[in-house]
Amino acid sequence: GDAAAGRKKAVACQACHGLDGISKLPDAPNLAGQVEPYLIKALGEFRSGTRRNEVMSVAAKDLTDADIADLAAYYSAIEVEVVPPS
Amino acid sequence: GDAAAGRKKAVACQACHGLDGISKLPDAPNLAGQVEPYLIKALGEFRSGTRRNEVMSVAAKDLTDADIADLAAYYSAIEVEVVPPS
Repeated sequence: GDAAAGRKKAVACQACHGLDGISKLPDAPNLAGQVEPYLIKALGEFRSGTRRNEVMSVAAKDLTDADIADLAAYYSAIEVEVVPPS
Repeated sequence: GDAAAGRKKAVACQACHGLDGISKLPDAPNLAGQVEPYLIKALGEFRSGTRRNEVMSVAAKDLTDADIADLAAYYSAIEVEVVPPS
């Protein structure tokens, strides 16, 4: 996917997920640095209904495959550093 | 949940999710620093069957509420720093 295009499309996602991929709501997961094929799979499942969520079932309804690929490219590309657990 | 207890229980999860919460497989999401209520909800859905996944439906089958709370506490407590997207 095209991360730059994904960034523009992520404007629709930022209320819950943030443009930085850090969750803004207790129900919304962080997306920053998430595994790209996992994001593609999740968005596809929300679009097809295999996976249901009040907000995401609507948000994903009209996404094209390109939208899904671009959004997944964008959020997975956000660099995340893990501070190893003590 | 008790993150220390969660760390012990996460040994069962590390093959795919890592003890550090960084995915070891393309299908497995990162869990490090994930939103705690989201993890609790996801594990509950895998246990109840509301959400299905070949591996997770089995992995979550026998989790107790305490297991779920501890695992969510452990993985969400892993510190993650996001390098803001350029």
